[in-house]
Amino acid sequence: MNKASILQCAERIAPFIHRTPVLTSSSIDRLAACSIHFKCENFQRMGAFKMRGGMNALLSLSDEQKAKGVVTHSSGNFAQAVALGAKALGIEAHIVMPENAPLIKQKAVEGYGGIIHLCESTQAAREANARQIVQDKGCSFLHPYDMEPVIIGQATAAKELIEDFDKLDFILTPVGGGGLLAGTALSAHYFSPNIRVIGGEPFGADDAYRSLKKGELLENETVNTVADGLRTNLGQLTFPILKAHVAEIIRVEEQEIIDAMRLIWERMNIIVEASCAVPLAAILREPEQFKGAQVGVILTGGNVDLNKLPF
Amino acid sequence: MNKASILQCAERIAPFIHRTPVLTSSSIDRLAACSIHFKCENFQRMGAFKMRGGMNALLSLSDEQKAKGVVTHSSGNFAQAVALGAKALGIEAHIVMPENAPLIKQKAVEGYGGIIHLCESTQAAREANARQIVQDKGCSFLHPYDMEPVIIGQATAAKELIEDFDKLDFILTPVGGGGLLAGTALSAHYFSPNIRVIGGEPFGADDAYRSLKKGELLENETVNTVADGLRTNLGQLTFPILKAHVAEIIRVEEQEIIDAMRLIWERMNIIVEASCAVPLAAILREPEQFKGAQVGVILTGGNVDLNKLPF
Repeated sequence: MNKASILQCAERIAPFIHRTPVLTSSSIDRLAACSIHFKCENFQRMGAFKMRGGMNALLSLSDEQKAKGVVTHSSGNFAQAVALGAKALGIEAHIVMPENAPLIKQKAVEGYGGIIHLCESTQAAREANARQIVQDKGCSFLHPYDMEPVIIGQATAAKELIEDFDKLDFILTPVGGGGLLAGTALSAHYFSPNIRVIGGEPFGADDAYRSLKKGELLENETVNTVADGLRTNLGQLTFPILKAHVAEIIRVEEQEIIDAMRLIWERMNIIVEASCAVPLAAILREPEQFKGAQVGVILTGGNVDLNKLPF
Repeated sequence: MNKASILQCAERIAPFIHRTPVLTSSSIDRLAACSIHFKCENFQRMGAFKMRGGMNALLSLSDEQKAKGVVTHSSGNFAQAVALGAKALGIEAHIVMPENAPLIKQKAVEGYGGIIHLCESTQAAREANARQIVQDKGCSFLHPYDMEPVIIGQATAAKELIEDFDKLDFILTPVGGGGLLAGTALSAHYFSPNIRVIGGEPFGADDAYRSLKKGELLENETVNTVADGLRTNLGQLTFPILKAHVAEIIRVEEQEIIDAMRLIWERMNIIVEASCAVPLAAILREPEQFKGAQVGVILTGGNVDLNKLPF
């Protein structure tokens, strides 16, 4: 995962993704007492940054692997990313989803041409099902975050942000499994090493904070958070990258997440997922260190069920 | 209201407004069977295109007039535009609002430094109050749409859209008082005369449709529509411009407006007012004439009360 691999990846996935815009809000800047540059991955294809890593993972397969199809387990944006990316490349995509996954997400995956396999709603059942499909069909398994080409794909968002605005003091992203935060940390390291990279994490699912404090990989003790994209644990690949290149994890309360989400909706007139709002919540919780700074924030996605808003 | 006045206005208001982005959505294009270029005035300062006309009206005043302040009556975006623009220029702004105007809108006007005068919730009371303030203070009255500098200001949105994309076959805007539609028609006429300019209007407030059919200025018989920005009647100035330069008014049902609004929210991840969705509803209602065409749509604003969504 060196500089060249990120540059190569950016070129390779370019025809399949959007170069997303960077937006600012003078009223949020006033509240936060710093200048925030929001990289809008909620405008990414299929609505989230996962398109980058999913696409790069698909493009990394050999022709033989492509012919046999891919499988992933996810009820979220990675499922949609793999389905849509596979369709573009003519690859068969098997998506293992828990049987209680929202119908709206199942429909989205189907709409992109993914083949859904419903299973019990446990991590063990999901993994077993995916393994079975790998065995039966010889598919390649794509991991939503703990996989080199996925991390490298996610790194391209921060690379673009740094290209668009080269005077950043900080970049913040939310942290769930750590794919985006690890990729962001790598891009900052290679393309603008003075940037401090910070992760935002809910108190209710704070494995990254605790893992970095302790220096060893710990799992979530709870997953009580409205930020449903951030309930996953760090991985074997993402954790060492965070350890090496991430300055800090800031934890935030649920109400702070909801307030920051609403702030983005109301002041910027854009739709973002709750997970997206965690970095802004972190800035507003600890404003001192960001005061007067140039701050990049990656808004990760906008796939929200409008019938289930938290406010 | 010639070409030069629009060019002059664009230059004059440039420091006070955003040049808003043009977004597209491949999934909406598929549904509509044409290519739609959405001019995002929901990202305009204070959240709506009214900033353009309000700003131009303020900048058209003499120094003597500026010193005496301005007054308008509006419970909507024009009130906020005048308050914010006046603040930027150091002008006192009196805003007459009906006493039942949503608190959120009163607060927004106050936040921008406007002086609110509450009155009974009738057109007569609003006009009488504004007249009284003009008499007492020697203020200049600014009309939300039926006023040359306002129409010219609104024309700059379409001018920018045409500059950004010069192959448009159509431009659609919603029509309420007609300021935006008139300005858009003028810009098309001067800058790209082959563009057909079309207004979208709710059946529940269809004075523009009926006025253009009959060839004389008629008032709304009902104002039953979720598109609260479109309940006003055409004006003495806007009507003749529509008559001369607008190809057609397409009327749409309430459910079509709500569906189109939700479509924009879900597929584009942006927040738009119900009024904004009327042109897309019109395209989806009468797809034949737009099939395969390059279509500009002005998304007028994004000031939505998130606690009162129509879906």
